[in-house]
Amino acid sequence: MKSIVIVGGGFGGLAAAKTLAKKSRNTKISVIDAKNHHLFQPLLYQVATAGLSPADIAVPIRSVLNTKSNAIDVTMEYVDKIDAKAQTLTLRNGQSLSYDVLLLACGSTHSYFGHPEWEEFAPGLKTLEQATEIRRRILEAFEKAESSKDENERRELLTFAIVGGGPTGVELAGAIAEISRKTLSKDFTRIDPSNTRIVLIEAGSRILAAFSEKLSKHATRDLERMGVSIWSSTRVTNISDKGVHMGDEFLRSKTVIWAAGVQPSPICRQFPNALDSLGRLKVDNFLRVQGYVNIFAIGDMAHFLDSTIGILPGLAPVAMQQGRHAARNIIAMLAQNPLIPFQYNDKGKMATIGRRTAVSEFRGFEWSGPLAWYGWLVIHIYYLIGFRTKIFVLLQWFSSYFFFKRGARLITGKEWKIFS
Amino acid sequence: MKSIVIVGGGFGGLAAAKTLAKKSRNTKISVIDAKNHHLFQPLLYQVATAGLSPADIAVPIRSVLNTKSNAIDVTMEYVDKIDAKAQTLTLRNGQSLSYDVLLLACGSTHSYFGHPEWEEFAPGLKTLEQATEIRRRILEAFEKAESSKDENERRELLTFAIVGGGPTGVELAGAIAEISRKTLSKDFTRIDPSNTRIVLIEAGSRILAAFSEKLSKHATRDLERMGVSIWSSTRVTNISDKGVHMGDEFLRSKTVIWAAGVQPSPICRQFPNALDSLGRLKVDNFLRVQGYVNIFAIGDMAHFLDSTIGILPGLAPVAMQQGRHAARNIIAMLAQNPLIPFQYNDKGKMATIGRRTAVSEFRGFEWSGPLAWYGWLVIHIYYLIGFRTKIFVLLQWFSSYFFFKRGARLITGKEWKIFS
Repeated sequence: MKSIVIVGGGFGGLAAAKTLAKKSRNTKISVIDAKNHHLFQPLLYQVATAGLSPADIAVPIRSVLNTKSNAIDVTMEYVDKIDAKAQTLTLRNGQSLSYDVLLLACGSTHSYFGHPEWEEFAPGLKTLEQATEIRRRILEAFEKAESSKDENERRELLTFAIVGGGPTGVELAGAIAEISRKTLSKDFTRIDPSNTRIVLIEAGSRILAAFSEKLSKHATRDLERMGVSIWSSTRVTNISDKGVHMGDEFLRSKTVIWAAGVQPSPICRQFPNALDSLGRLKVDNFLRVQGYVNIFAIGDMAHFLDSTIGILPGLAPVAMQQGRHAARNIIAMLAQNPLIPFQYNDKGKMATIGRRTAVSEFRGFEWSGPLAWYGWLVIHIYYLIGFRTKIFVLLQWFSSYFFFKRGARLITGKEWKIFS
Repeated sequence: MKSIVIVGGGFGGLAAAKTLAKKSRNTKISVIDAKNHHLFQPLLYQVATAGLSPADIAVPIRSVLNTKSNAIDVTMEYVDKIDAKAQTLTLRNGQSLSYDVLLLACGSTHSYFGHPEWEEFAPGLKTLEQATEIRRRILEAFEKAESSKDENERRELLTFAIVGGGPTGVELAGAIAEISRKTLSKDFTRIDPSNTRIVLIEAGSRILAAFSEKLSKHATRDLERMGVSIWSSTRVTNISDKGVHMGDEFLRSKTVIWAAGVQPSPICRQFPNALDSLGRLKVDNFLRVQGYVNIFAIGDMAHFLDSTIGILPGLAPVAMQQGRHAARNIIAMLAQNPLIPFQYNDKGKMATIGRRTAVSEFRGFEWSGPLAWYGWLVIHIYYLIGFRTKIFVLLQWFSSYFFFKRGARLITGKEWKIFS
């Protein structure tokens, strides 16, 4: 019996595992992930801004894969080392695992461009832990501003700086504007949350650079209307507990969020000969890591050159299509049938800005405003994994849409102990 | 304008604040709590066992109190000192606050009977942070058992010890039995979660000592049927990372939960002359702290002697009735009207054991089994604060009732940073 090991339970890894479970015969399939849950990352910003609970956008990998008793082996552990010659993985718990075919789908993490010390003052948004940390910081800033008697302190507490004007930065800025202008405004007696300053800092000349100039302008206008200041062509040079330095400019802010860049999973470095300049693994037309016949890589960590689009971007549809395709190629390989080149079916892209406004792009067509927002809603609900989760998220959204309420406004700390 | 300060946003404090907001004229009402949220503690065990999300049982104190724009001042901070002579409170942020009338409603915390060092190995269940920590430990134990190759290690990972056979201990034991026998059993391929050992350790001669012997027997039988071993008359002498010592007996367990005792809030020690032997504040018939005319204490931290029941127990109905009554007495006091003695209207008590089984007692009547469970359900839904929360919890329960699913099976860590 051949052993297929998938590392990573994100969009790509799960799609591959499901396809393999359905179509492969006489194979042992294992999925390894450091977390016990699959995370619907496109909605993580909603957890960070108290719109959804962690459990609304995450499902245990085990229960996703075992609905039809597929007998997929799921292990919650880090992968420390890959020995391609011996065809084995070493896990952090010391165990090793041998494979006949390896599929890497480990995604990416945020990058501080050589300044990891900024993380403490400007959390990134890639995990549930980070999302609840950001939520804690945002809500606590309002609480502290409410009890502060010092005008300057209050001002820096009510200044939110978001670094990076990609979809995550735009979504965060829009959501913070919304909660401060609508949700929180009734709850505070001494401060006026609508005086909140929200600054979106982007190094490039415009936000949402992956979209057309027209959509980028739409997003800019919508955000500004909601009270977000957009500082484009502005490069961050330092971040401290006081705020953000941009050359000789300085913005005092107690809450800085990092949405400015990603880097592929460090596991890529196990294959030094296949790395591109950003640290991703170059893969061939069949999604195999350059130089290896039985190791596939997909999603954010893979550098795949599409003849029309160029290098495919780090989007969920890319990862899912590649996952399914890699699974089919693995089955073909084990059956000694010819492999099939991967062809990306462009699903477009979208970013939401706020209540009833978004931008989207699909094969040359562009939308902005309410229509794009409803499209965004339908697609995200559709893709949310698991029946229960869909219904719950839909209900939460209904309630926040109609009542301007945010259901998950909890400040919870890291420390659970009360003694010493 | 007279200033009324309420310390604590639990059942008692909120009931008092609402009554004061509705009925007092020309007063400034302030509520101080270390947390930003009111917690529906009777359902905290459901968060610890992955049935509900933190946001399902918690609401921001601000939004509970400001629905009718009562202009109640809410501050999120610890109270460090009370100066009864000067009529001021000192907050941890250094600010001080003066009051004309003070209402203490700070509740209780768990107690390790002089062994705070046990907390690390046996978390208690009083806060959301503790509930998610317990959830993490329970779910991680199953994950680790799945990847362990050592039979002994697996056994100690699949042994859950709950110390304390009161309602919390019983509810936790029942819920762990349920998730291991039903929810998780399909998800694991290498271990059989239904081999889980769940041991409920009680120092007294029977569990649920506050209930009648008959109901206690019912609960024992139901729990045993679900696979819980009940070790009564067993005193814990030490807890370590290896397990629980009970005299010369020793139970190897990686997951120990503490549900064995509570102590009143440390703020009671500010009034050394009013303490009872358990550290609670003795209050008079009007709920005023012994020796003070303008300081009231209610709920778990108050020692109130009822002529028929004795010292009132730490239950939500007691706290809520006392909160409303203290508010009315405060209003009477400020209007120089006579105060009215507090009279407890017994609402009975209940404890749930598992799916469709519970025990309850009300004015001499006793129920057990499904009827008690449905009663429990109706009452808990009814008392859950806030419209949204009720609907969501009801839906989550429907879904876990019909599908044996647990929606919040997330293992999240304490650390959000990924660098250094």
